[in-house]
Amino acid sequence: MKMSAKDLAAFLNAKIDGDPDVEVSHPSKIEEAMPGSVSFLGNPKYEAFAYTTKASILVVAEDFKPQQEVTATLLRVPNVYQSLGTLLSHFERNGKPFGISSLASIDPTAVLKDKVAISAFTIIEKNCKIGSGTVIYGNVYIGHDVEIGENVTLFPGVKIYAGCSIGNDVTIHANTVIGSDGFGFVMENGKFKKIPQLGNVVIEENVDIGSNCSVDRATMGSTIIRKGCKLDNLIQVAHNVEIGENTVIASQVGIAGSAKIGARCMIGGQVGITGHIYIPDGTQIQAQSGVMSVKEQANQKLFGSPAIGYNEYLRSYAIFKNLPDLENRIRKIEKSVEENKHNV
Amino acid sequence: MKMSAKDLAAFLNAKIDGDPDVEVSHPSKIEEAMPGSVSFLGNPKYEAFAYTTKASILVVAEDFKPQQEVTATLLRVPNVYQSLGTLLSHFERNGKPFGISSLASIDPTAVLKDKVAISAFTIIEKNCKIGSGTVIYGNVYIGHDVEIGENVTLFPGVKIYAGCSIGNDVTIHANTVIGSDGFGFVMENGKFKKIPQLGNVVIEENVDIGSNCSVDRATMGSTIIRKGCKLDNLIQVAHNVEIGENTVIASQVGIAGSAKIGARCMIGGQVGITGHIYIPDGTQIQAQSGVMSVKEQANQKLFGSPAIGYNEYLRSYAIFKNLPDLENRIRKIEKSVEENKHNV
Amino acid sequence: MKMSAKDLAAFLNAKIDGDPDVEVSHPSKIEEAMPGSVSFLGNPKYEAFAYTTKASILVVAEDFKPQQEVTATLLRVPNVYQSLGTLLSHFERNGKPFGISSLASIDPTAVLKDKVAISAFTIIEKNCKIGSGTVIYGNVYIGHDVEIGENVTLFPGVKIYAGCSIGNDVTIHANTVIGSDGFGFVMENGKFKKIPQLGNVVIEENVDIGSNCSVDRATMGSTIIRKGCKLDNLIQVAHNVEIGENTVIASQVGIAGSAKIGARCMIGGQVGITGHIYIPDGTQIQAQSGVMSVKEQANQKLFGSPAIGYNEYLRSYAIFKNLPDLENRIRKIEKSVEENKHNV
Repeated sequence: MKMSAKDLAAFLNAKIDGDPDVEVSHPSKIEEAMPGSVSFLGNPKYEAFAYTTKASILVVAEDFKPQQEVTATLLRVPNVYQSLGTLLSHFERNGKPFGISSLASIDPTAVLKDKVAISAFTIIEKNCKIGSGTVIYGNVYIGHDVEIGENVTLFPGVKIYAGCSIGNDVTIHANTVIGSDGFGFVMENGKFKKIPQLGNVVIEENVDIGSNCSVDRATMGSTIIRKGCKLDNLIQVAHNVEIGENTVIASQVGIAGSAKIGARCMIGGQVGITGHIYIPDGTQIQAQSGVMSVKEQANQKLFGSPAIGYNEYLRSYAIFKNLPDLENRIRKIEKSVEENKHNV
Repeated sequence: MKMSAKDLAAFLNAKIDGDPDVEVSHPSKIEEAMPGSVSFLGNPKYEAFAYTTKASILVVAEDFKPQQEVTATLLRVPNVYQSLGTLLSHFERNGKPFGISSLASIDPTAVLKDKVAISAFTIIEKNCKIGSGTVIYGNVYIGHDVEIGENVTLFPGVKIYAGCSIGNDVTIHANTVIGSDGFGFVMENGKFKKIPQLGNVVIEENVDIGSNCSVDRATMGSTIIRKGCKLDNLIQVAHNVEIGENTVIASQVGIAGSAKIGARCMIGGQVGITGHIYIPDGTQIQAQSGVMSVKEQANQKLFGSPAIGYNEYLRSYAIFKNLPDLENRIRKIEKSVEENKHNV
Repeated sequence: MKMSAKDLAAFLNAKIDGDPDVEVSHPSKIEEAMPGSVSFLGNPKYEAFAYTTKASILVVAEDFKPQQEVTATLLRVPNVYQSLGTLLSHFERNGKPFGISSLASIDPTAVLKDKVAISAFTIIEKNCKIGSGTVIYGNVYIGHDVEIGENVTLFPGVKIYAGCSIGNDVTIHANTVIGSDGFGFVMENGKFKKIPQLGNVVIEENVDIGSNCSVDRATMGSTIIRKGCKLDNLIQVAHNVEIGENTVIASQVGIAGSAKIGARCMIGGQVGITGHIYIPDGTQIQAQSGVMSVKEQANQKLFGSPAIGYNEYLRSYAIFKNLPDLENRIRKIEKSVEENKHNV
């Protein structure tokens, strides 16, 4: 999909400065751009790249005054970052499915609203409801009695077990599993017996979930991810967990059963959070920390395993790194004290 | 699927105390119950909820004597927990597939016993044997020469590579992979050469495995998960690992190649276990620990990375948290000793 | 698939010593071998097993002189390890798909070179190019404009998003996701807004990737895995990461956005690497380490979270384990100093 500078100028409401017929097929970073791409200069710090970039088109601020020759055609706009957003969305290569594939398996009791798209080899079970504008890629499984809102995107291989509920404007990436059984067993006569997992998962609106995540259904009631949450890849959310609004979770985090995470938390990669804990609003947890307990106080910063205060951990770790020195100092003192004793 | 109090009483062999015609559609927790749900009072500690619950039906002990008014219809049973189990299994929303889907791809050499169910877009390759009562959801892959026992459940997207063996009564959740290649390469003339991975995976009876796990095939011989083991989600089991009976493994644990784990171990979330190690029976490993070596002694409790004794780690960590104080004490002593010297 | 000793001798160009008609169906380890299997004696250290093994056929060195009775038929070869490789490849139970399945969904604009195999329920979108000899198992998704080289193997359930590029001789195991969106959001008026992820993933030749991995596409430009890299299972590679040639990464490692990993690094299991960092060539990182910063110097060995020098960490950890003792020593000194003071 090629566009000329003239087309792009009309699209972005920009003034052209240079060849209006040069064509581009994709966006690029100013310092890595090749001919045939459009780049942008948003931060004056990077002005030098404007004179060396190989981009065919460069989006710049209205009042940009080149100090040297620029080979790219310039598109002058009032707000470079806003235009960048518009441009990127335009070029986005998502190749979304369109319409209902004849190769999907859709139960006749399922209710699909208008503009729903479902691709090949996807299974929709009994009594599902799917809101308008929702796009479901191939090899997806939607168990019975699942409710999916409007403008949801489910990428290939997503599996949603029976009875779960997905809000409007949710995006879930490939091979993520929603609603697998919570991990609950009781030992009886030397054998583990499974505790039936009868709850579901509720994902509220505007949530994004990455690829290869596992979100388990509740034993009873619901595992809940509240609106605006953002989850990266390979994350474990156990049964009966509740995650507060707009909390951000980096990849490979594990949250154990019945933990309640507050709103606006920031959880770093590979963090582990123990079960039945309450993490207050606005808590920031450094990557790889293991949270076993936490004070009831908003906006803490945690680090370590078990996690303590972030600065506290770093101060202790600074000394940890020099423990051999510390021991030497103690050895010296011991010797000195011993001598003193003799002297005395 | 609605049931009346009368139906449920017959089903649970209970005595009705209240309106026999009230209907319920799902179970709920006593403290969160809404009208239309059935709840239970098992532990007398929670008796207060019996007087405030909105559940339409409440399962209670035979001899329960309300101290206040109860709005729910009571079902009196000899053993509340037993009835709970029966009830939950009854309501379980698993919507299992039934029969053989015409949209599955099943090699004619595969042997399917009676009551096998296979859903759409599932592939069964050559010479597979599948035991009676086994249920295979959609988008599953079963490589050639795989043997699957009776009453096995494979959830959507499970992939089982050629030559693996799955015992009776095993459950594997969505998108878990059994039998991918072990991770083995040798450097030859500056290039890695793959070591062929010719073994398989053997999963014994009564094993449960969560979603998005990876269990690699052995280089030669078998990677073995013994009977009764319970694995949570996103777990890595490398080539030639052997896991003993009834061992429980929480999510995101990684077990490196040729490690041998004893029976009845409890392994916390995100634990890492090094290769070629033997973990004795009954070992308990705290979440996020990294086990690089371990004494040959049953029922140890480990913590830390590298892991040491659980109590030992906590005692050291308690001092670690106050290392700046410790250093101050040393500084003070140094000063004091210095002064003493001068005094002497 | 059974082979007689005679067949195998012809295949390996070996001399037979024993029953030429005995048949075997699979390879095995010499110490665990059962009748019906072929094993090998490569290392003289294991000679004792030659006299007790139950293998039906044993591959040995040309000049092997048994000191006791051997029940297996011997196949004498000039180079046992070379014959082993040949043998293993022969027995490899990969059951690769062959030809193009009529149950796959392939866009007519896709270009498939000769000897491409595509199995059932796989989706190939618009404008894909797939090189000769490439084998794609079932339930795979290939987004539009993906380029795949020659002799690539994609196991069941692999998902490759639009615009990504896979080099020659690459192997990707089941349910791995290539090209899911990078994790980028900006807070605007109290709501997270997604940053469009417009780049792709480039995987160069001879790369192996395990099962259930997530490799995110770049925000702009490419996430790059350079030739010869070997990745185990359940690994997270974030947007705009670049991994240098022949780097080896164990399972459950997480690499954050825009990190650049050098060539020939060895990264242990469950390691976390922070974003926008440069890891020099040949760096070795111990399992579970968290790398937040690193000196610009090749071939370092790191350990800890945050990671420091490997030996430095172990030395400090050795003292950490005895911190209660250390504190006791300090306590004693304090007492001693206090007494000294009084004495003085």
